[in-house]
Amino acid sequence: MEAAEKANVAAPLIKRLDLSKGDKFDAMLQGVLDVAHLPDPIGKVTFANRLDDCLDLYRVTCPIGVLLVIFESRPEVIANITALAIKSANAVILKGGKESFHSFTAMSRLVREALAGTEIPPGAVQLVESRQEVSELLKQDKYIDLVVPRGSNELVRSIKGGTKIPVLGHADGLCSVYIHEDADLDMARRIVIDAKTNYVAGCNAAESLLVQRSALQSHLPTIAQALIDAGVSLKVTPEIGEALKLCGVEGAENAAIMTANDKDFDTEFLSLTMAVAAVGGVEDAIKHINTHSSKHTDSIVTASKETADKFMNGVDSSGVFWNASTRFSDGFRYGFGTEVGISTSKIHARGPVGLEGLTCYQYQLRGNGQVASDYIGAGGQKQFKHEKIDI
Amino acid sequence: MEAAEKANVAAPLIKRLDLSKGDKFDAMLQGVLDVAHLPDPIGKVTFANRLDDCLDLYRVTCPIGVLLVIFESRPEVIANITALAIKSANAVILKGGKESFHSFTAMSRLVREALAGTEIPPGAVQLVESRQEVSELLKQDKYIDLVVPRGSNELVRSIKGGTKIPVLGHADGLCSVYIHEDADLDMARRIVIDAKTNYVAGCNAAESLLVQRSALQSHLPTIAQALIDAGVSLKVTPEIGEALKLCGVEGAENAAIMTANDKDFDTEFLSLTMAVAAVGGVEDAIKHINTHSSKHTDSIVTASKETADKFMNGVDSSGVFWNASTRFSDGFRYGFGTEVGISTSKIHARGPVGLEGLTCYQYQLRGNGQVASDYIGAGGQKQFKHEKIDI
Repeated sequence: MEAAEKANVAAPLIKRLDLSKGDKFDAMLQGVLDVAHLPDPIGKVTFANRLDDCLDLYRVTCPIGVLLVIFESRPEVIANITALAIKSANAVILKGGKESFHSFTAMSRLVREALAGTEIPPGAVQLVESRQEVSELLKQDKYIDLVVPRGSNELVRSIKGGTKIPVLGHADGLCSVYIHEDADLDMARRIVIDAKTNYVAGCNAAESLLVQRSALQSHLPTIAQALIDAGVSLKVTPEIGEALKLCGVEGAENAAIMTANDKDFDTEFLSLTMAVAAVGGVEDAIKHINTHSSKHTDSIVTASKETADKFMNGVDSSGVFWNASTRFSDGFRYGFGTEVGISTSKIHARGPVGLEGLTCYQYQLRGNGQVASDYIGAGGQKQFKHEKIDI
Repeated sequence: MEAAEKANVAAPLIKRLDLSKGDKFDAMLQGVLDVAHLPDPIGKVTFANRLDDCLDLYRVTCPIGVLLVIFESRPEVIANITALAIKSANAVILKGGKESFHSFTAMSRLVREALAGTEIPPGAVQLVESRQEVSELLKQDKYIDLVVPRGSNELVRSIKGGTKIPVLGHADGLCSVYIHEDADLDMARRIVIDAKTNYVAGCNAAESLLVQRSALQSHLPTIAQALIDAGVSLKVTPEIGEALKLCGVEGAENAAIMTANDKDFDTEFLSLTMAVAAVGGVEDAIKHINTHSSKHTDSIVTASKETADKFMNGVDSSGVFWNASTRFSDGFRYGFGTEVGISTSKIHARGPVGLEGLTCYQYQLRGNGQVASDYIGAGGQKQFKHEKIDI
């Protein structure tokens, strides 16, 4: 920690590095224990179909194979991912950020010691240290089945462009909260404050606030004042700036009100800064979010189920929340024990990736000598039965 | 067809092009009708968890978005994929092979005419014609969510290397049949003949035959003779050649016995040719298959459930079959109506990809004002309930 502070490491990064902050360490341990107690995800039949008498098809879960996980600086990630990889019977190669090198080395020694007493080959969990090794590994599409990068959008895009291995991207968290005109004001205020300030370094922290135009007088002043009181600087559109001025909301000692520029609604601040804009209504909010967000998690605060449903069906993000903070977007909170990360990919696994995201499946067909040429479509006359088998 | 024959197109390709061969056309129509009658795959809750009172998490299926499907020459593919894309609420851009250009154009006109009478925007299904357009499309990772190439391993690898868009590869089908010593001989013979000769141009046709060493006298001669009688040329290891000679099995007018070279066990012949080798037993067969196969579909013929289970758990292929022909590896035969193709990827969707493979999901969280900071792990004291909600 002190070394990091001396090395002029930015405050949000130090927060990510520090395992002793708050209940982070206990939460990490609890996550590992939770994973241990989850049911075995491998060998589960997830679909079964009787194609014909004595010709039964089973879809059975299996490990993906060899994972390459490239992650940023949070030291707890090594514990989380190791637990998930072992439980899902995958082998994993881990590459951490240089800022937490010593924490990683210590934790990886503990992992090796723990594995030595089990049947799991110690090589099933490996740590690589240099970037050069990573470039070499990214070429091994014959042997590595999935790359999981956790980091900036830039990192994820550069990895995607440089490998033939499938990539499960964990990129920026550019989350928003939209306040509809019928929102309970106190609820809206609490959700925005939590989403923005509970843990600014988290990818599920909100970066943008959208307020329905018709709520600029009723809702905006209270929420803006609460944000400023919490030390949040606001980057506002001219329309929002005007509305705040009319209501007498001003910046405070630690929190300024500034005019937003073009890029502010596409920026993951990871700090006490929030971009604020007005939108016409829920359709407009959906459009704004689908244009600017990173498809991570977006919340609506509204009293209307109909409006909430419209929002949740229209927003193309992995998490779409109604009357709840974006901060709930998390494997532990979802009940997955812990997580590999929060996927912003649209295939395989989306949102918090737990055990299930580290499995795939294979089709097992059990017959007694059937051949395709006896059946229609391949030259024969027999019909398939296609009867669902109870699992 | 005649144009194709004149243009010196290879026989397996002509077979793929010809929609009027056998019941291909009827099977295509039936596939589309089957897809129409399948349940709507969108908006289905596949997981639900009560995080706390009035804080309910639902995982809901949704379309992936915009698909780019690049496929070879089979004209039926446009009907199959269009049906699946519309049913799963995805938009799709299709690029077919040049050999079937006229069939595609005619079918795509019919699709547009059919869509004109519906609420689906006609732009939801688009055909692109030139390779140049495809290169441009592969750069649009902001707008295209998934590329599905169906074709050679080379095509799939070149696409994977040249785009940041996720790729669901449909590559070579290098399938094998392994004959264990306790296999019923007649069953083994029928399965091998079907797997090799029923449709040689299919990716689920078998290319390699593995025979347990202890069955070279009991099983190999009958099976080899049946293959030769069916016009199949055998590329054999010296050990197999010796065994055939001892038993008096010889090549016939249309079918030779040749010595296999190094590459024959890595080759998708797509013709009446089969590579044959001896293996020590089931472990050896698993090792051979995991080294040489394309992880598509592999069958074992054995009387023992234990041996079959060992094979099915050990072979890392999307389809692992016991006492059934590899030719059953197919969306229609599995009961999916029709298929986008047979995925050799290990993430997202594996094996025959039907409707489910064209969906993803999002997490919808429905609360009444909850904030993370009230709960453990984020600074508060409240415990999560994590109670499964019956779907």
